[in-house]
Amino acid sequence: MIPENPSFHAHHSPVGALASFTCGAHGAKGGMGLELSGPYQGDISVGYQDAAGTLNLLPLFADNDSSESERYVEGSLQAARPQRVLKDVTREYLWATDRISAPGVTFEIVTPFFAIPDPKYATPTELAFASCPVVQVSVTFKNDGTEGIRGIFALGIDHRWSSLGERTNGTLTGAMSREEIGFATQNEEASCWMDFDPLSALNRKHSTAEFLLGPTAGLEIYVPPGEERTLEITLGFFKAGTATYNRAMSYYYTQHFTNLSQVLEYGIACREEYLELARERDEELASSKLNDEQKFLIAHATRSYYGSTQWLWDGSQSVWVVNEGEYLMMNTFDLTVDMLFFEMRFNPWTVRNELEQFVNRYSFYDEVFDPADPETLYPGGISFTHDMGVMNHWSPATRSSYEVGGLDRACFSHMTCEQLTNWVLCAGAYLSKTHDEEFLRRYRHILVECFTSLQNRDHHDPAQRDGIMSLESSRTQGGGEITTYDSLDHSLGQSRRNIYLGGKMWASYVALEKLFELSELDELSKEAREAASLAAKTLTEGYDPNLGYIPAVLEEGNTSAIIPAIEALVYPYFMGLSEVTSEQGPYGDYIKTLKKHLKHVIDTGICLYEDGGWKLSSSADNSWMSKINLCQFVAREILGFDFGKGQFEADRAHARWEREGSKLSACSDQFRSGVAHGSLYYPRIVTNILWLREQ
Amino acid sequence: MIPENPSFHAHHSPVGALASFTCGAHGAKGGMGLELSGPYQGDISVGYQDAAGTLNLLPLFADNDSSESERYVEGSLQAARPQRVLKDVTREYLWATDRISAPGVTFEIVTPFFAIPDPKYATPTELAFASCPVVQVSVTFKNDGTEGIRGIFALGIDHRWSSLGERTNGTLTGAMSREEIGFATQNEEASCWMDFDPLSALNRKHSTAEFLLGPTAGLEIYVPPGEERTLEITLGFFKAGTATYNRAMSYYYTQHFTNLSQVLEYGIACREEYLELARERDEELASSKLNDEQKFLIAHATRSYYGSTQWLWDGSQSVWVVNEGEYLMMNTFDLTVDMLFFEMRFNPWTVRNELEQFVNRYSFYDEVFDPADPETLYPGGISFTHDMGVMNHWSPATRSSYEVGGLDRACFSHMTCEQLTNWVLCAGAYLSKTHDEEFLRRYRHILVECFTSLQNRDHHDPAQRDGIMSLESSRTQGGGEITTYDSLDHSLGQSRRNIYLGGKMWASYVALEKLFELSELDELSKEAREAASLAAKTLTEGYDPNLGYIPAVLEEGNTSAIIPAIEALVYPYFMGLSEVTSEQGPYGDYIKTLKKHLKHVIDTGICLYEDGGWKLSSSADNSWMSKINLCQFVAREILGFDFGKGQFEADRAHARWEREGSKLSACSDQFRSGVAHGSLYYPRIVTNILWLREQ
Repeated sequence: MIPENPSFHAHHSPVGALASFTCGAHGAKGGMGLELSGPYQGDISVGYQDAAGTLNLLPLFADNDSSESERYVEGSLQAARPQRVLKDVTREYLWATDRISAPGVTFEIVTPFFAIPDPKYATPTELAFASCPVVQVSVTFKNDGTEGIRGIFALGIDHRWSSLGERTNGTLTGAMSREEIGFATQNEEASCWMDFDPLSALNRKHSTAEFLLGPTAGLEIYVPPGEERTLEITLGFFKAGTATYNRAMSYYYTQHFTNLSQVLEYGIACREEYLELARERDEELASSKLNDEQKFLIAHATRSYYGSTQWLWDGSQSVWVVNEGEYLMMNTFDLTVDMLFFEMRFNPWTVRNELEQFVNRYSFYDEVFDPADPETLYPGGISFTHDMGVMNHWSPATRSSYEVGGLDRACFSHMTCEQLTNWVLCAGAYLSKTHDEEFLRRYRHILVECFTSLQNRDHHDPAQRDGIMSLESSRTQGGGEITTYDSLDHSLGQSRRNIYLGGKMWASYVALEKLFELSELDELSKEAREAASLAAKTLTEGYDPNLGYIPAVLEEGNTSAIIPAIEALVYPYFMGLSEVTSEQGPYGDYIKTLKKHLKHVIDTGICLYEDGGWKLSSSADNSWMSKINLCQFVAREILGFDFGKGQFEADRAHARWEREGSKLSACSDQFRSGVAHGSLYYPRIVTNILWLREQ
Repeated sequence: MIPENPSFHAHHSPVGALASFTCGAHGAKGGMGLELSGPYQGDISVGYQDAAGTLNLLPLFADNDSSESERYVEGSLQAARPQRVLKDVTREYLWATDRISAPGVTFEIVTPFFAIPDPKYATPTELAFASCPVVQVSVTFKNDGTEGIRGIFALGIDHRWSSLGERTNGTLTGAMSREEIGFATQNEEASCWMDFDPLSALNRKHSTAEFLLGPTAGLEIYVPPGEERTLEITLGFFKAGTATYNRAMSYYYTQHFTNLSQVLEYGIACREEYLELARERDEELASSKLNDEQKFLIAHATRSYYGSTQWLWDGSQSVWVVNEGEYLMMNTFDLTVDMLFFEMRFNPWTVRNELEQFVNRYSFYDEVFDPADPETLYPGGISFTHDMGVMNHWSPATRSSYEVGGLDRACFSHMTCEQLTNWVLCAGAYLSKTHDEEFLRRYRHILVECFTSLQNRDHHDPAQRDGIMSLESSRTQGGGEITTYDSLDHSLGQSRRNIYLGGKMWASYVALEKLFELSELDELSKEAREAASLAAKTLTEGYDPNLGYIPAVLEEGNTSAIIPAIEALVYPYFMGLSEVTSEQGPYGDYIKTLKKHLKHVIDTGICLYEDGGWKLSSSADNSWMSKINLCQFVAREILGFDFGKGQFEADRAHARWEREGSKLSACSDQFRSGVAHGSLYYPRIVTNILWLREQ
């Protein structure tokens, strides 16, 4: 699709390398970065020097007048610095291809993605191909003039470069820095240079093309008058050795490649295969029945997801980590459950891998208490941490980096009940699609423990249960738990008696009913069904006819209206339990009530912004794109809503929030009135992969 | 000594770790950094929380109102942020101890240095002690009040921390980030915390002391009313694995320590030994007869030197590198020759190591040409590159990162003739002090080649030689060579017929005469003496009675006056050849002329700034502290000048240039009218170690 405004940053990332070539916003810095919480702050120079000596560049850099050379010597090495920013820039933004063009120059950045083969069963050849940390780029120069021009691609960084030509005895033409990032071509017409900046290089008065003191390295190709030339470039990333702390792990690709120049050679050799896979993805999204803004949102979300992925090797097996965007928390569980649908589409083994990590190292047992009497503790049960660490620092076993004790329903409190539902729901989705009997056998006891734990958070006395959470974890030390909506008000931020989390408890019981049935644990299956019914009943009865919706929190007279009341319907749907989400099914009343609820909050506009975008809570200006996209799917596909032209209005609003409200942060999650204010550079928005399932 | 103004940045570094805990300037960022070209940009919090809850801190941070916590949640976690910057800060700046105090708090940073044992002969125990990358710190809190206070030391960084208590099963209390930097204590009264910032930690509403999401980690100690407590802290640095590119080398300390917590444990265990060595150095400088500003300059220079040192291991032996301050070029040879005197005092083996590296990998053979006829090439000979690489990227053999071809006496041109003199002069100094017969035997042929090469740069026809350089290296590709004063005008920047470089050629011939004599190469020794005489004669005859000095360049009517005309006298002096620098000796006329020269340029003020500081060239506002300090030594100790009260005036001016003109860049080299404008954060100023030799 062609975005109405081409100026916005996007991730361009290999799979699992926690690496990104971020660029796209005009007049902004960008570049190749490893393990960063935002775009690399360098200058990208793509364009050509015309016959008059003027350098014509795409606007992929932040213009400034100073040159690094001024640190060494007064004045600059060339008298004039004729440079012009190309106008009439357009952009074609496909699922795996980002094409930025101006008259005479087309810059194409290709990031293929595909099913990552399960490392437990795949061949080394397949795994090398899937893990190779490269991005494919090309620049096509069209010379309509009567004199030759010089096409260039260059990166200005904060460090220094080595020559790949020197390193590979001429096999590659290009440069690498710290043996961590690099770019190369085998185009025989191309040459490489290094200098302070592109103008210094192209107008150099000295004779040393590779001037090693310069922070800018580039490729150059001569384009004769009337002709066209394409510079095929492979970008590569590499981080050798131990990559994570407290638990020493390396990047998985180091099992297949020993260094960056090898990665680049491989990337070049397999270029056509990678491009073909990208074309398949491009075609798939383009030919879907979605509107253009929906296609934009999917393409944008997908790029941000891969930019946060980190495929590690712990010495004996693969460890899959998705980092939490700008925060770089590792495998934040309340993101995992949202990215579940994307991973299940492409590589279910990553879901299995995450679930196993949570059980093996990031599970724990707690007790619970009634908030009216925090001193008296009752049995709780198993649950899971919010995350596994931050910025490559694994947190100690049974602890997250995020959660602290002693807070009452405030940001950084524990999310114990929600993470418990997340393990059940991920396991349910995983098992329903894969029928992985070994997994079910191995973790059946965990499912049983989860069931007990869920019920204990409702009430220790079965007679007093109503299906949703009422008791708090002892980990809060007398405080109160929160949900994933941590920076929102209590309408979505508080866990207990919350209808959003209540919905996830209902869905967890529904999933457990099914999983116990598969495990031939019939009694438990029946109990789970009863618990689900109880939850559905409580939520249904929460409906307030005077309000016209179910208030967000079923206590203390809360009257907020929230869209995510409907969120949890996605899990039984995804598990293929169509009767569960049917108005004619066992939870028919609940489903009908949710329809009424959603119709009211949308039709009255209390959960809409003026631009038509969705406002998750009527009482907070803090809306999360991943959840909006998920709830849109639930509304349309499960609850059968047709928003008419309101649909495109909302999609356009959301796309503009990303393109304009999050212009410099690639895809972001949290927006305040259309402006990203948190959860920047974020992976979670791939919930919108679900849209491709819509009929 | 007590600097008149305590607000300036200083390096505090272990030996050979290219690491620094930079701090000292008030209201400025600082912290622990590895391999940086300037101070780490973090916040250092040292002070105490008083009974009223106010945090009183030394001004070692840049004040701002935002907290990292705002990235996660609106508003901050505590309502008020009562914080006060302590006033009446004083500083005691000794050779190895930097003591920053305010009422109630004394912060002491101790950086012992000593003879690094020769790794060829020393025991592992000695080498572990010398290479251990630690800095010793202590904070003493004196509580004169009637209620308890909480003393703290904390670092705010751009990354996240792990708990050392967790990692070492309680052996250490402290934190580390990325397993690269960390701090620890074994004080049993101390506890560790992590949080967004010190105020969040000290006023935390939650109960998790080590909140892993926070970028700040600190130590805390309770100080009862009327009592005093000292927090003894060891700072440690560690970079595991391969540290340099193109040629894979690791830090030498990795041969003795496997990780950061081990380094910290060792540093704590040996703390008293380190402190004792620091006291020895402190005492040595304090008891010298130098004035306070001279003591300041030596202490400041020494810290900057160690901050740039990098002791590597190439897999079979030690490799000594000194990085070029902010530029991070590796073993820049024209710095090596200045830092020679410092290294010869403490560890001559590092000089040997550098000389061997230059021969083995960074030497080459060129041809030379007359600038009037660049096309006709004549035999040149051996010489050496400007440097060995930049920012841990080794440059290819026979190439520097800095030098490029095709430039005529402009910055980044080749320094071939000067680097040739530098090898000879370093070798002369090394051999004269160590009597290392094996080195002499092994490199005798290099000395012979250097002699030939030096003469060929004078003239290929012996009859036309006059002892100084006239021909240019073919590496300049028709351009012209420069000297180490690369960003100065031709008075010091141009090589050929320059009296500064002419002096170094003279000194090289003098050195070779001696070394050939030691090698029983009597004929060559005689030839070298003749060449030295010729050079001295040419330089002496260059004296212009109308000007009152020898003009800087003996061609084209140049009339600049330069102080470094006298610089090269230091080499024969250092080699113990006292007759050579005597007015009664074989070069008596030359020595007398240089005295006349210097007297004139100082007495007339053409080489002075208004503040009494030295101006190296009458025609350029670009004066280099390392060279000023060196020439001051030559003037006083060799030429017998007594500057009376002008001496202290100059020293105070130079000290102020560093403290005020280079306040945020630790010790710098290039100044323009007292303000540092290049060569910041620089190691070279240790030429002033020579002052300690003065009678």
